[in-house]
Amino acid sequence: MSNRAAIGIDLGGTNLKIAIVDERGKILAKRSQPTDAARGPQHVVDQSAQVVAALLPEVGITYSNIVSVGVGTPGPLDLKKGFILRAANLPNWIQVPLRDMLTARMNLPVVLDNDANAAAYGEWWTGAGKAGGDLVMLTLGTGVGGGAIINGKVLHGAYGNAAELGHMIVVADGLPCPCGQRGCLEQYSSASGIVRRVEAAIRGGEHSSLCVSAPVDSETVVKAAEQGDPLCERIFDEACRFLAIVCVNIQHAFNPATIVLGGGFSGAGEALLRRVRQHRDAETWKLCDDAPDLRISALGADAGVIGAAGLALDARASK
Amino acid sequence: MSNRAAIGIDLGGTNLKIAIVDERGKILAKRSQPTDAARGPQHVVDQSAQVVAALLPEVGITYSNIVSVGVGTPGPLDLKKGFILRAANLPNWIQVPLRDMLTARMNLPVVLDNDANAAAYGEWWTGAGKAGGDLVMLTLGTGVGGGAIINGKVLHGAYGNAAELGHMIVVADGLPCPCGQRGCLEQYSSASGIVRRVEAAIRGGEHSSLCVSAPVDSETVVKAAEQGDPLCERIFDEACRFLAIVCVNIQHAFNPATIVLGGGFSGAGEALLRRVRQHRDAETWKLCDDAPDLRISALGADAGVIGAAGLALDARASK
Repeated sequence: MSNRAAIGIDLGGTNLKIAIVDERGKILAKRSQPTDAARGPQHVVDQSAQVVAALLPEVGITYSNIVSVGVGTPGPLDLKKGFILRAANLPNWIQVPLRDMLTARMNLPVVLDNDANAAAYGEWWTGAGKAGGDLVMLTLGTGVGGGAIINGKVLHGAYGNAAELGHMIVVADGLPCPCGQRGCLEQYSSASGIVRRVEAAIRGGEHSSLCVSAPVDSETVVKAAEQGDPLCERIFDEACRFLAIVCVNIQHAFNPATIVLGGGFSGAGEALLRRVRQHRDAETWKLCDDAPDLRISALGADAGVIGAAGLALDARASK
Repeated sequence: MSNRAAIGIDLGGTNLKIAIVDERGKILAKRSQPTDAARGPQHVVDQSAQVVAALLPEVGITYSNIVSVGVGTPGPLDLKKGFILRAANLPNWIQVPLRDMLTARMNLPVVLDNDANAAAYGEWWTGAGKAGGDLVMLTLGTGVGGGAIINGKVLHGAYGNAAELGHMIVVADGLPCPCGQRGCLEQYSSASGIVRRVEAAIRGGEHSSLCVSAPVDSETVVKAAEQGDPLCERIFDEACRFLAIVCVNIQHAFNPATIVLGGGFSGAGEALLRRVRQHRDAETWKLCDDAPDLRISALGADAGVIGAAGLALDARASK
C-alpha cells in the first residue's frame, strides 16, 4: 500500500485542528490548539505549517508523501478564488486569500471549502454515510451548518452557498436571526439557540430547575429535560420538532440516503435521535417509504479534518 | 446539420402530448389529445405509437432518424425498472412497466422520468434556464411538482423522489394534505389549493365577489384579487408568500442559479412573479446576495415534451 496522505485542516473560531490522513480516511496523527485568529491570517497559516512540520516525523512521513492540503473554514467563501470573504468567528478576517497563502507557505496544492461541507464529506467518505448514497449533514453548534454530498461530490450550487440549511425557514414570522431572516432553523435547533431560548424564558419569569446565573449549555438543557424540567422539556422538544420538519424538507428536496446530525448538540446522542425520529415519523408523508436514515455523526470532532483531507485527495484524483 | 431527433411524450391524467424534437430542442411537430387512461396502459402505448407514426411523415423524418423516446409521467416511479408504481391521475395504473411496453411497441430505447423532472430539464435545456447553472422548477397545477437540474442532470436522490417540493412543509400543524403530512406547500400554492381555500372560505360565510356555485379556477381568483376582492387578495397573497418561503428554502438548499415557476397557476405571469419576488425579497437573508433568478416558465405547456425528448437525447449521448 502506498503511503500517500493528505493534510486536513479544520479552522474554527476557537480551535485549529490539523490531521495527517491516509488515503483510506484514517487519521495518522492529529493536533488541536487554540486558533490565534486575532493575530491575523498569516500567523494562523504559519501556525498550521509548524503543526504539520511537527506531526510528520511523528508518523514517519515526509513532505514528499503529502499529496495536498484541504481546509474547512467558516464562510461565506469565494470558492473560485479560494478566499474567505468574512467569517463571524474570525473577527476582521475579510477577503482573506487563504488558499494561496497556504499554498505559498506549504508548497502544496490546497483545497478550500466550507467547514460543514468538509464535515459532510468526511461522514460520507468514512463515517455515518460510508455505506454510500447521497448524504446531507446538519452541524448543530453555535449556528446550524449544512453540507450535501451528491454523487460523491460536495454540492456548491451557483453561488457556492448550497446546503446553508440552518437558514431554512421553519416558522413564518418566527424568531429574528442575525442573517436578516425570521424563523431560521438555527434559532430553534442550534446548541446556542436552545440555550438562548431557555435563558430568555427564565429571565421572562418562567419556572425552571435551571438557574440563569449558572453557565448553561445544550447538554444541561437536555439533561434537565430528561429529568422532567417542564421548560427545558418544551424547548428541547421544539428543537427536535423543527429539526424533524427540516429533515422532512431535506427528504423531499434531496431525497438522500442518509441525514447526519453533528456539532455540539448532537452530543445528546440517542436522546436527540429518538426524539427527532419520533417527530419526523409523525410529520413525514405516508405515500412511500423514502425517509433517509437519520444518524448521529460517526466521526464527531474529527469529521472536519478527515473531510478536508478527503476533499484534497479527491481533487488530486480528479486531475 | 444532422436530422437526428427524439420523441418526447408528456403523459398526463387529462392530456397525452407528443412531440418530435430535434437535437437543439426545437419542436418539429406535436400533437395533444385526451389520454384514454381508463382503457389501460397498453391502449395508451398504442395511442402514442399511432401519433408518432402520423407525425413523422408530416416533417419528412423517418424512424431511422429517431434516436430515442423520453416519457414524463406522474409518479411515484421505479426509475431503475422503468415502472409507474401508481399515479393519482391515472386510476388503476399500478406497477405499470411503461418503459419496456413502449420499447416493445416502438422498437426504440425509452427513458422514463417524473413529469416535473422532465419539465425542469426542458426549461434548463432550452427555456427559462438556458443561460446555464443549476435550476429548480416548481409546477403549480393540481398539486405542486418539482424538479432539480444539478450539473446538467436531473437530481433523483437515493429513492428517486428528489425535488418533491410540493410536499415541503411550510406551516407546522397546517392544512392536512392527502400525502399524510400537514402544511405542505401544495395545499397553499397549487392552482387547485388556492381554489379549494377560496371555496371553503365562501362556504364558511366569508364575503367575496366570487360565487361558489360558479366554476372557479386560479385565474379567476387572481383576477378577483387584482380587482380588490379581499378574500381572493388574502388567499392569493398567502399562496405567494408560502411560495416565497419555499424559494428561500430552495435558495439555501440547492443555491441554484434559477427557480422557474410553471403549471396552471403560473399563467398569472407578472402578477404572480411580482408578488412572489416581493415576499421573497422580504423573507430572504441579507448576508449575501445569492437569491436565484425567479422566472415564469418559458416553454409553458411544451416544457414536458421538450424536456422528455432532451432526457432521451442526453441518455443516448452518455452511452
